[in-house]
Amino acid sequence: MSDEPGADIGAETRRRLESAATATLAATLQKRGVRTTFMAGLAPLKPGQRMVGRARTLRFVPIREDLVETYAPRLNTQRAAIESLQPGEVLVIDARNDTEAGTIGDIFAVRAIELGAVGIVTDGAVRDAAALRRLDMPVYARASHGATFRRMHMPVDQQVPIACAGVTVVPGDVIVGDEDGVVVVPAGLADEVAAEAEQQEFEEEWGMERVAAGETTDGCFPITPARRPEFEAWLAARRERSS
Amino acid sequence: MSDEPGADIGAETRRRLESAATATLAATLQKRGVRTTFMAGLAPLKPGQRMVGRARTLRFVPIREDLVETYAPRLNTQRAAIESLQPGEVLVIDARNDTEAGTIGDIFAVRAIELGAVGIVTDGAVRDAAALRRLDMPVYARASHGATFRRMHMPVDQQVPIACAGVTVVPGDVIVGDEDGVVVVPAGLADEVAAEAEQQEFEEEWGMERVAAGETTDGCFPITPARRPEFEAWLAARRERSS
Amino acid sequence: MSDEPGADIGAETRRRLESAATATLAATLQKRGVRTTFMAGLAPLKPGQRMVGRARTLRFVPIREDLVETYAPRLNTQRAAIESLQPGEVLVIDARNDTEAGTIGDIFAVRAIELGAVGIVTDGAVRDAAALRRLDMPVYARASHGATFRRMHMPVDQQVPIACAGVTVVPGDVIVGDEDGVVVVPAGLADEVAAEAEQQEFEEEWGMERVAAGETTDGCFPITPARRPEFEAWLAARRERSS
Amino acid sequence: MSDEPGADIGAETRRRLESAATATLAATLQKRGVRTTFMAGLAPLKPGQRMVGRARTLRFVPIREDLVETYAPRLNTQRAAIESLQPGEVLVIDARNDTEAGTIGDIFAVRAIELGAVGIVTDGAVRDAAALRRLDMPVYARASHGATFRRMHMPVDQQVPIACAGVTVVPGDVIVGDEDGVVVVPAGLADEVAAEAEQQEFEEEWGMERVAAGETTDGCFPITPARRPEFEAWLAARRERSS
Amino acid sequence: MSDEPGADIGAETRRRLESAATATLAATLQKRGVRTTFMAGLAPLKPGQRMVGRARTLRFVPIREDLVETYAPRLNTQRAAIESLQPGEVLVIDARNDTEAGTIGDIFAVRAIELGAVGIVTDGAVRDAAALRRLDMPVYARASHGATFRRMHMPVDQQVPIACAGVTVVPGDVIVGDEDGVVVVPAGLADEVAAEAEQQEFEEEWGMERVAAGETTDGCFPITPARRPEFEAWLAARRERSS
Amino acid sequence: MSDEPGADIGAETRRRLESAATATLAATLQKRGVRTTFMAGLAPLKPGQRMVGRARTLRFVPIREDLVETYAPRLNTQRAAIESLQPGEVLVIDARNDTEAGTIGDIFAVRAIELGAVGIVTDGAVRDAAALRRLDMPVYARASHGATFRRMHMPVDQQVPIACAGVTVVPGDVIVGDEDGVVVVPAGLADEVAAEAEQQEFEEEWGMERVAAGETTDGCFPITPARRPEFEAWLAARRERSS
Repeated sequence: MSDEPGADIGAETRRRLESAATATLAATLQKRGVRTTFMAGLAPLKPGQRMVGRARTLRFVPIREDLVETYAPRLNTQRAAIESLQPGEVLVIDARNDTEAGTIGDIFAVRAIELGAVGIVTDGAVRDAAALRRLDMPVYARASHGATFRRMHMPVDQQVPIACAGVTVVPGDVIVGDEDGVVVVPAGLADEVAAEAEQQEFEEEWGMERVAAGETTDGCFPITPARRPEFEAWLAARRERSS
Repeated sequence: MSDEPGADIGAETRRRLESAATATLAATLQKRGVRTTFMAGLAPLKPGQRMVGRARTLRFVPIREDLVETYAPRLNTQRAAIESLQPGEVLVIDARNDTEAGTIGDIFAVRAIELGAVGIVTDGAVRDAAALRRLDMPVYARASHGATFRRMHMPVDQQVPIACAGVTVVPGDVIVGDEDGVVVVPAGLADEVAAEAEQQEFEEEWGMERVAAGETTDGCFPITPARRPEFEAWLAARRERSS
Repeated sequence: MSDEPGADIGAETRRRLESAATATLAATLQKRGVRTTFMAGLAPLKPGQRMVGRARTLRFVPIREDLVETYAPRLNTQRAAIESLQPGEVLVIDARNDTEAGTIGDIFAVRAIELGAVGIVTDGAVRDAAALRRLDMPVYARASHGATFRRMHMPVDQQVPIACAGVTVVPGDVIVGDEDGVVVVPAGLADEVAAEAEQQEFEEEWGMERVAAGETTDGCFPITPARRPEFEAWLAARRERSS
Repeated sequence: MSDEPGADIGAETRRRLESAATATLAATLQKRGVRTTFMAGLAPLKPGQRMVGRARTLRFVPIREDLVETYAPRLNTQRAAIESLQPGEVLVIDARNDTEAGTIGDIFAVRAIELGAVGIVTDGAVRDAAALRRLDMPVYARASHGATFRRMHMPVDQQVPIACAGVTVVPGDVIVGDEDGVVVVPAGLADEVAAEAEQQEFEEEWGMERVAAGETTDGCFPITPARRPEFEAWLAARRERSS
Repeated sequence: MSDEPGADIGAETRRRLESAATATLAATLQKRGVRTTFMAGLAPLKPGQRMVGRARTLRFVPIREDLVETYAPRLNTQRAAIESLQPGEVLVIDARNDTEAGTIGDIFAVRAIELGAVGIVTDGAVRDAAALRRLDMPVYARASHGATFRRMHMPVDQQVPIACAGVTVVPGDVIVGDEDGVVVVPAGLADEVAAEAEQQEFEEEWGMERVAAGETTDGCFPITPARRPEFEAWLAARRERSS
Repeated sequence: MSDEPGADIGAETRRRLESAATATLAATLQKRGVRTTFMAGLAPLKPGQRMVGRARTLRFVPIREDLVETYAPRLNTQRAAIESLQPGEVLVIDARNDTEAGTIGDIFAVRAIELGAVGIVTDGAVRDAAALRRLDMPVYARASHGATFRRMHMPVDQQVPIACAGVTVVPGDVIVGDEDGVVVVPAGLADEVAAEAEQQEFEEEWGMERVAAGETTDGCFPITPARRPEFEAWLAARRERSS
């Protein structure tokens, strides 16, 4: 899959990312030596949603009143970030984990939906979480807070590398969310990671079946070489069934 | 509206506060230069409730065993605060954001309901959250903890200015809560703030309609002078409809 | 009740522990001078479950890559802790309150269920909370995180005294959980504490009735000597009814 | 010693408090069941000073701009607290452990010295620590910060019980400071605690002599009944020497 | 004074900034409505130094192993920031307040000195603080840590607006440091702020003289209109003396 | 070098460890993939000391009053750990980073010195830091606190793997301290790490010379292949000089 921010996620990769747990994706990246991809401490505003999209980034810095006219006249940087959203993108906001003010509210979120965005992730707070919860788009945040961003923040640039909830996000990264939270999949690794994650989920499905049948985990999770033929047979049969 | 702790919230103001989001109220106060009114990190024990009432304050300090007989004989200060609750009041507890012990439990909460209280807010923990959740009164807290307050706290005085979740609360302040959290509206500003918040909610309702119809936010959120006549016309029509 | 890790919780004590609130148990222990028994900051993955069981402990330390082969070859210490679970036990994990990686996932949890375990408590994060939520066993954790434990942790020993969420747990302690959280009841005190907690719950039930009937809490919570005969009569009647 | 805020500390008690380590005083209070007397996290601005005085308290709450005219017109509450300082008193400031603004600076500190104050303790920050360090009075703080208190705080009342660095302080408490930090000695216990602390320091002096001479600590720290006669003889000799 | 990053600080302004306390500068900015200019929690590695220079910024994000080749090949971004230092500049590093790895060490610091830099400020940790302490250049940091930045960080861009210790810094800002810490003076306000700060220091010097002479602070700190003529006379005399 | 706890550190390795900066040692381990070896947030009680010794570990858990008689009768576990100290050992205490009570005081420290211990490291607080500062042995701690350990802690076992300031320490690890803090060198890697660190320090010495002579860091830090011959010649000359 291409690293280009605008490039599309391939259909096969998308399907795999939509069905893999964020925990499986994070573990797959971890095995490849990419340790820090899971955003700690963010929760979805409502349960049961999945999110897969490319990152569009927005960076906030602490408000400095003498700079407001330069950086945040009539919300311009934030508005520009929203307006530049492409279909299939996720807006990812770096608010330095500071939850003492909101970073986005429902009108901007609806505009994002209108433009085809598929999710919003902020490591700060959202305003009016109840209204956001009613929208048909996953939103992940650390907290809710009533104040507008001006209480603490100033949007300063967009489409630059940011830190969000302790994870570096570059424009175009694949952002995947489920009930556990949000994981960042590097675009250049997305195809491989999605394929490995699918394989891992099969292995865990088989392992779970074995354990639910009363076996110990030793041998079937992780699968030892001795048990692998058995798993392969199961997987072949499973694939036949589902085709 | 009067600053007097006992004075009633006017009917019009109450109606407006009951329908305004805490986020809108906090933003309205922010515009007037009152920056710190939203209590960060508190959550309602159950969703879907609204709370509007005047503050009755209770202040805890760290327990000091040599002082217990002076300040907390048989719960007296806390009990006195509960017993002095007037109809329409919200009990607001300063527990220094310390969640290592409870600050109130269900029997005192039921007594508060009996006396006409309309809510409880603590920046510490509650005991037996499950029991409190069954009551018909909003309760906001930072956490739940099984220990009684004596593990960490000692109630020391009531009806004095306190800090609750980072916000100063003085007796008689108007305390408003929704799903997002709790905002403190100064009594002397309540009428004006409620009116402005209602107007702001109309503006956001119109802005949302425009954005949901596919417009960009630029012009309609916030409303620019050029678009204001359009909004005014919409508002007049809306008011006609609802009257 | 015996201190022996394997020994069973008596039927009467078990019945009492299953119906007492963790808040009541913590308060009962507090009165006896045992101050720190309630695990702060842990939440059940799903509401409405009760947990009563004996502790089996597992201790994690920070990962040190040079030691992985000694302490965590192919998950051995963690696996050994799981495999040694006895019916009626709760697995309690000391992860130093570090939520930057998971500490347990669904396959090991299912294995624990198969072995008769009745709960899992970790002061770190769980992986794949959604999957764990579907299981028929209470799980308490501080957070969820996608990474496997190797990102931060290394299991180092089991069945030793540990700290979990700020509370010391020794193997065989009675671990009780409800919607509020988790309390540790020392095995040697379990019978007495369970009996006292039941009595306390009766006192609070009566107190609640009195307060709901419009009385002040003064006299009935806590019960003063003057009101005790009244309570005793109520209790006798109540017991008659329920027998 | 009297509980009266104005009452003097007796000469003998003062002498003992001036030579006892804060660690010894805290331990002595701990043995009597008063657990929380040592202020955690405060440091003296310069080393080598001792502080013994009665507490005068000042309480800050978070700034609320609509209340500034009521509570902090031209610094009035803070100024009043300073002006009411009596000779031998220590000003103790409750700033909720918030270090995001100063709470006192050098001019007010010099005024305090002029009035006979013997120390300043704040659980927030001081402004211009370098200037304060040049004064001849111990100052304890959590940090230094350039902003004036108005950035975060509003002084709201004085001579009420406060929390300072996690310890409750009531007006008139005896405040003792050394290089380790600050301990609060309840006025009513000061005579006894001072005497016990002196005795404890003798015991530790003897224990240290024994250990420095190559003995194990077992028997001489703490002193066992078997070794007590030996200690008593040493103490009698020591007292003779120093008289 | 010009906003241009390269432009020089005027001699008069420089003289004033070198003699004003950071506390005075922060307070002067606060009065003008710029609230957040003092970096909280940073300390100079050694006492007794003053720092005044223009900011050159360097931004770190969390390390992501798949991006290291892009953003940090052989230290390139950090090296480039160092190499681009102009005489009179202060290197200001945004490390997200994360102290779990170093952000700069002594060789790069010596190179900065060679290039004419006048200070280094990081909101993370430094490596080998002892070596840095021996250099003739002020260094401000939150901590020291032995690990190289790769343990946690990845330098990602330079000369962009950053957050450092909670304060936004833009390239060219005037960075002033003393024993208390570091304050950011916006370039466009530097001349005025320096002048006002000098005036404020005169007022405080007079106030201090008055208070040291036994007066109350009321009237002389802050100076009331009634006392201003007295101050003005003192100031005129003082200026005559020092000219 | 042997992994055996009692085994001695070879003379050559000791000499190298005594002259290498902890930052160099941490970086050397980092390069070998051992990421977490530097104890964050601990400071030496006094500057200018070096510490090299083998770890003897002591583990504290939160106090639980019902267990005190089992685990901490008359200080036994702590005393046993002290008494078992061998010459050349460093006592390393796991106090869960909790600084709300002391973990060791001066009498036990003097006993440690008598037994030949060469340092004490605790991730909690020490009692009576002033007294400890007067001893001729390095002590590293997070804070000082007056209370005895019983306020928060209970020593529970010794010579087991522990976490200290975020780093796993196993008995026999080589513990090295300087002004920056403390690094843990695995015994089995000590010889190699010491040799590599010495080489690294030579490289940095040469790099520093080059930079101090006006060169850019590019090429000489880290040393590129093109410059390596130059460095090797310098190193040979340097070795000749010092032999």
